Amino acid sequence: MSFTKKAKELVYKMTIDEKLSQMKYDAPAIQRLKIPAYNWWNECLHGVARNGVATVFPQSIAMAASFNKELMYEVASAISDEARAKYNENKKQGFTDIYQGLTMCAPNINIFRDPRWGRGHETYGEDPYLTGVMATEFIKGLQGSGKYRKCDATLKHFAVHSGPESCRHGFNVEIDEETMYDTYLRAFEYCINNAEPSAVMCAYNAVNGEPCTASKILLDDILRKKFGFEGYIESDAGGVEDINNYHKHTSNLTESAAMSVNNGCDLCIGSAYENLSDAYNKGLISEETITASVERLFAARFRLGMFADDCEYDKIPYDIVDCKKHQDLNLKMAQESIVLLKNDGILPLSKDLKVAVIGPNADEKDVLLGNYNGTPSRYTTFLRGIQNECRNVLYAKGCHYYNEPESWDEKTYFEAVIAAQKSDVVIMCMGLNPNIEGEQPDEYSGSFYGDKSSIELFETQKKLYAMIKDTGKPIVFVNVSGSCIALGEQDKNCSAVIQCFYPGSRGGEALADVLFGKCSPSGRLPVTFYASDHDLPDFEDYSMRNRTYRFFKGTPVYEFGHGLTYADICENWIDKNTVEIVNNGNFDTEYSVLQYDYVPHKTLKNIKKIHIKKGEKKTIIF
Amino acid sequence: MSFTKKAKELVYKMTIDEKLSQMKYDAPAIQRLKIPAYNWWNECLHGVARNGVATVFPQSIAMAASFNKELMYEVASAISDEARAKYNENKKQGFTDIYQGLTMCAPNINIFRDPRWGRGHETYGEDPYLTGVMATEFIKGLQGSGKYRKCDATLKHFAVHSGPESCRHGFNVEIDEETMYDTYLRAFEYCINNAEPSAVMCAYNAVNGEPCTASKILLDDILRKKFGFEGYIESDAGGVEDINNYHKHTSNLTESAAMSVNNGCDLCIGSAYENLSDAYNKGLISEETITASVERLFAARFRLGMFADDCEYDKIPYDIVDCKKHQDLNLKMAQESIVLLKNDGILPLSKDLKVAVIGPNADEKDVLLGNYNGTPSRYTTFLRGIQNECRNVLYAKGCHYYNEPESWDEKTYFEAVIAAQKSDVVIMCMGLNPNIEGEQPDEYSGSFYGDKSSIELFETQKKLYAMIKDTGKPIVFVNVSGSCIALGEQDKNCSAVIQCFYPGSRGGEALADVLFGKCSPSGRLPVTFYASDHDLPDFEDYSMRNRTYRFFKGTPVYEFGHGLTYADICENWIDKNTVEIVNNGNFDTEYSVLQYDYVPHKTLKNIKKIHIKKGEKKTIIF
Repeated sequence: MSFTKKAKELVYKMTIDEKLSQMKYDAPAIQRLKIPAYNWWNECLHGVARNGVATVFPQSIAMAASFNKELMYEVASAISDEARAKYNENKKQGFTDIYQGLTMCAPNINIFRDPRWGRGHETYGEDPYLTGVMATEFIKGLQGSGKYRKCDATLKHFAVHSGPESCRHGFNVEIDEETMYDTYLRAFEYCINNAEPSAVMCAYNAVNGEPCTASKILLDDILRKKFGFEGYIESDAGGVEDINNYHKHTSNLTESAAMSVNNGCDLCIGSAYENLSDAYNKGLISEETITASVERLFAARFRLGMFADDCEYDKIPYDIVDCKKHQDLNLKMAQESIVLLKNDGILPLSKDLKVAVIGPNADEKDVLLGNYNGTPSRYTTFLRGIQNECRNVLYAKGCHYYNEPESWDEKTYFEAVIAAQKSDVVIMCMGLNPNIEGEQPDEYSGSFYGDKSSIELFETQKKLYAMIKDTGKPIVFVNVSGSCIALGEQDKNCSAVIQCFYPGSRGGEALADVLFGKCSPSGRLPVTFYASDHDLPDFEDYSMRNRTYRFFKGTPVYEFGHGLTYADICENWIDKNTVEIVNNGNFDTEYSVLQYDYVPHKTLKNIKKIHIKKGEKKTIIF
Repeated sequence: MSFTKKAKELVYKMTIDEKLSQMKYDAPAIQRLKIPAYNWWNECLHGVARNGVATVFPQSIAMAASFNKELMYEVASAISDEARAKYNENKKQGFTDIYQGLTMCAPNINIFRDPRWGRGHETYGEDPYLTGVMATEFIKGLQGSGKYRKCDATLKHFAVHSGPESCRHGFNVEIDEETMYDTYLRAFEYCINNAEPSAVMCAYNAVNGEPCTASKILLDDILRKKFGFEGYIESDAGGVEDINNYHKHTSNLTESAAMSVNNGCDLCIGSAYENLSDAYNKGLISEETITASVERLFAARFRLGMFADDCEYDKIPYDIVDCKKHQDLNLKMAQESIVLLKNDGILPLSKDLKVAVIGPNADEKDVLLGNYNGTPSRYTTFLRGIQNECRNVLYAKGCHYYNEPESWDEKTYFEAVIAAQKSDVVIMCMGLNPNIEGEQPDEYSGSFYGDKSSIELFETQKKLYAMIKDTGKPIVFVNVSGSCIALGEQDKNCSAVIQCFYPGSRGGEALADVLFGKCSPSGRLPVTFYASDHDLPDFEDYSMRNRTYRFFKGTPVYEFGHGLTYADICENWIDKNTVEIVNNGNFDTEYSVLQYDYVPHKTLKNIKKIHIKKGEKKTIIF
């Protein structure tokens, strides 16, 4: 019997109140039907999040930079194994709290339209194709390919959602159909066509006047009818409330709840659906509509094997969490996510050099973890990673991310200058952290969370950089951020420039492996690195005019797809779909081959990552 | 020519304005006399602080727990080598900013009178003798024994100062003479008699109606005349301002400044002495008094070799900072600072056990560092230390220090229960951190800094403890704090209880060394561990009635001086001053012998720490 049929049979036995109770994310037990309580809210953007120790893989934007879809699949598969292992154990204990279930609010496949968006690092970057491909592998890995689903993936946020965070709850995007399909919906459609994601989460904002959470056009016309999506749809946290509170689209919560369900939003994260009973009594919503939603939700629970005794994933043991195999995979993904932007030949470094490691990101744990993260049982900061490889290391923090010291504060610049002077080479670990660029303040956030106002380095960091540059020592500039930073000066004057997106708990090892040549870098930029704030259109402008590599008319410092290796790779395109790759250098390396369309404009069409030894030649046919 | 004579000659050449300029902590250069700028403010409570990377030794209270005065001397000597090395380098660069000089605002020798005082962990505990002995070694190590002084030590805070932090700027202590000398002044007198400290810092509070910073009785009658102190006296930061602002003892800053200098406070930390010029013009202070102060300050600078070219300490090289020798010493001090309070035989643990490491202090960096700390180039959390020794470790944070999770927060308790159930033994790392107990909010502080309101464990931790206890697994309870916590329940029901004061950057290694038997614990409590808040007199009561082991009438959970080893030590007192120590056990150990007077009440009189092998017998003569 199909999962849908089983769901229908079970839901058929429920009273209207029981049905309504199941449309809340914290669905209570229905004892008489032997339905246990279930909390739908769980997170795993780049590892099981908010449920204790888990393998903390590189942040999404970093994994996108790997351009390695096969590796992405493996990572997602490891993540869902850990999620299942935790679920199995929690189930045994009778724990059914938040972040203990199988239904994951990931991946985030919004297009990283503007580098100032704080949540951009949760995405796979600015390109719809890359986003679709990486997300597809993520979903496949997460959901598994068995009789049951291992976990549920949720595409978010549907749709046309990429800041500003400050007004996300009431913002309306006016957008033409072509831009919507060409940019904002493409990855959603790609994933639905290629990976059968279980769920879709609605965006907070409105599109062309309809709040996404209750949009007939988006949810019914496009998602269900046009894209053929058959899973369940859920609100973002508090998204239903926004319809009346911020969008002023309805006059009260009862109307918001009814409108959301009527247009297809089956599940509410938040408490708004407690008003559905009122809506039903007032005739704003029919039992038939309610039943359809609850059936979709229970089809998902059956599909996850929650009511079965033959689910293969029930056997995944707890000790798979944070296991060595996953940690090895974590290191590999971290290595492949690092992007070498410039190298005048200084890299890789000899371990015999005296090295100064300088900067506010050098010895910070948080910067490894990104947001929506789990707890690592171990972590290696950049400094520690470098210390583990190299005996002669002088460390100096150098400056705060953005605060100048008060008169009675430590003056950290001085020590950095001394460290540089006493060293052969300086590794500067600069940039941002996930507390600076992040989500609108919530319980995981501090007062600096949210969007950036600029892509420039902070003044404190510019000052530190200038002081170190004045010492005349060669600089390897490691920019750590989840987004583009203006690196024109560094590209001109540093010996090497590395982009390290929030790289996970083994990030320090990965960086050291690249710096000292244990592996060749092979990441590529999943976003354009613009030269300055002047290159950026208005943040609230959702047209794609002059945005991303596909439409930008100016000259970036580093373009989308840029990324060097230690090898010497030659690409010979034999015909439109065949390319010969030759490694003429002295390093084995991973290498991503990118195939573009150029009409009507340059657009990524295919990616393939290969391992190629020195002297080797390989032919790729797309 | 003596340093004093040189100072007199130099000061003789100064104008009145030049003299006044030198009484501020940020003394400007006097070009025409070739006097460079000098900033008097530096910190090194347990390692060079606030000037970048340095060896971060255990917090003062932890070092006191070692009861090892010889080791204390070595640590202080290492600290001053690092301070000198940094000073030498900064001098070469022309840097003369805050925290770059040789004059150290340490040690803090206030008596830890009440366990709720937030700054208690900066002290050497509740006993005047132990405080005096440990401080004396600290001063000797810091100042060196050469022709010049390596660094200046500053006894603080003079006098009768131990909270509450909330009212420290305006608090008046009414105190009888006997208590003052018997408790609050004893360590000051001991240090002055035994170690020649260069400086004394005044307390913020008033004593018997006189603000300490301008107290004739304290500074002139007692400190200079009775104790014969010949060094310089300085205010605490902003202490002169407090005289009019909070104590209302004068009507304006000019009067406060004049009164402070007239009563002996030579140097101002803060900007109040900018009003001395006004005071001088108004006839509130004589040039003779000013000259005497400035002479004392320049005698100190001459004594530090600042104007000499033959100072042996000028040769201390920069690479002594954070060197291996100091890090080895750091580990040794950390090991000896750990106090084993209870052991039913479970310790030391076998490395083959499956171990759960649980608690908010298990993997935290800050808790290693205490306050007034430097930056470690490496650090080992308790978790990491245990992981390095033992292959089977499950980690769970378990709870926040004191916050219950909000509905949408991670529920950390569950994972801890699972980890415990899956393990043979649970190591709980609980307690406080130096952000919870600390100094009145300043630029290094957050909103929770300051005093504790209770010595009970926080409710979140009690809840976690109860859940873990319910699993029935044996618990090794590691309390991490800078002060007494009520551990009656743990003493009754845990297999072992360990007190780990903020143990420095190698604290995790030290704890693991003790847990797994690489070394025997040998610390002893420098403070009484009371059973409950009911044992505590009013926080503002400075009489010693029912306080500290010397006067407490109740039964503590663990008394001052308590501390077990893995050996089996027998003390046979042959006569009043001779004791035979026999190790009948199977472990070599360090062991502290304590000699007490019992009339008029129990009072520590002598300490001696020895190394004693299994089967060995040693005789100590005091």
